[in-house]
Amino acid sequence: MNTWTGNLQQGRRDRFDTGALISAPHNTNNRVFVIEQGRARVCLVGGAKEQTLRYLKVGSLFVTHTPTWIEAVEPSTILSWPMSELRDLIIRQPDMAIVALREIGGIVSTCLEVIEDLAFRSVESRLARYLLTKHRESGAVPFTLCDSTERLATLLGTSRQTLSTIINRMERENLIQRTGRRSYQVLDSETLTLTTDDLSAG
Amino acid sequence: MNTWTGNLQQGRRDRFDTGALISAPHNTNNRVFVIEQGRARVCLVGGAKEQTLRYLKVGSLFVTHTPTWIEAVEPSTILSWPMSELRDLIIRQPDMAIVALREIGGIVSTCLEVIEDLAFRSVESRLARYLLTKHRESGAVPFTLCDSTERLATLLGTSRQTLSTIINRMERENLIQRTGRRSYQVLDSETLTLTTDDLSAG
Repeated sequence: MNTWTGNLQQGRRDRFDTGALISAPHNTNNRVFVIEQGRARVCLVGGAKEQTLRYLKVGSLFVTHTPTWIEAVEPSTILSWPMSELRDLIIRQPDMAIVALREIGGIVSTCLEVIEDLAFRSVESRLARYLLTKHRESGAVPFTLCDSTERLATLLGTSRQTLSTIINRMERENLIQRTGRRSYQVLDSETLTLTTDDLSAG
Repeated sequence: MNTWTGNLQQGRRDRFDTGALISAPHNTNNRVFVIEQGRARVCLVGGAKEQTLRYLKVGSLFVTHTPTWIEAVEPSTILSWPMSELRDLIIRQPDMAIVALREIGGIVSTCLEVIEDLAFRSVESRLARYLLTKHRESGAVPFTLCDSTERLATLLGTSRQTLSTIINRMERENLIQRTGRRSYQVLDSETLTLTTDDLSAG
């Protein structure tokens, strides 16, 4: 038990078995809670499949009314208070605010990584399709990638910097080879096809 | 000026012109700041292109050490303190914590929407490509979508629920038509091709 939680006024204590749902998205019973015992997982379910945003451990503080699922990953005891008492709780125990800010800051960081990753993979997939089309059209010989990196980046809906990062990585992985200033050749069309995320109809 | 900021101990005051950068990702000079005058925008730049996560207005509170860009959208005055003073600031003015939690909570919500949207569009694009392949293979007549929705969902890397939502929307938009229990026909291959996000090599 963290020291800062010792000073808190009495809240409601609930027990959750492993796998039990502590909170579902857009819970209307707004409460702030702290993990007294056990461990929980904050996650997204839906289009993004199951994505863990953060693990809450003893002393972690969170709120129930977020668009996330919170699930006990081991038998857990949760101490909670109505959100309306948050201001009083912070006056009594300012560390509570510091812990809450750190916790939610960690979730923002994970979210931003997931966004970058999703956006990056989408650009990578589009570039792979673009390269394969050029490869087929050129009859498998080196081709001019584009008139300007700027233009290609715009076409792929990304920045020049991200585009360069992806092109460099593809070169390092021997998927493509640079043959001139703006000229490239596809070396491994099979792996590039996998990168496009295209599905064989099966 | 919000009333809660009146009580704050003196911080550093900086002025920013429209378009000036208040903070860049992973700033190492960790400060907590409040918008005294003007308006700023918290955004992502990179693979995700330019995505506004939140607007900060007079009385909004934020920190500089996040993986985001913070830009003044009108001439702004910022009052800031080193992060090490945050606990003292909260003791003196507990509302500061409430405002900070609300601000960062709003950013989490926006992030989750962006993630859902990116993940959803990616599944939609893959389904469109799958449908077009089936359409070509069947010679433009109705075809069996798959043996089970479960299997197709797995193939597309999504949940059955998300897959059904997308199929229903495509039907409503007259892109595809259901012709039997598992049988579908493509009605508008042109719009479906746009949905695949495929690029003409140009």
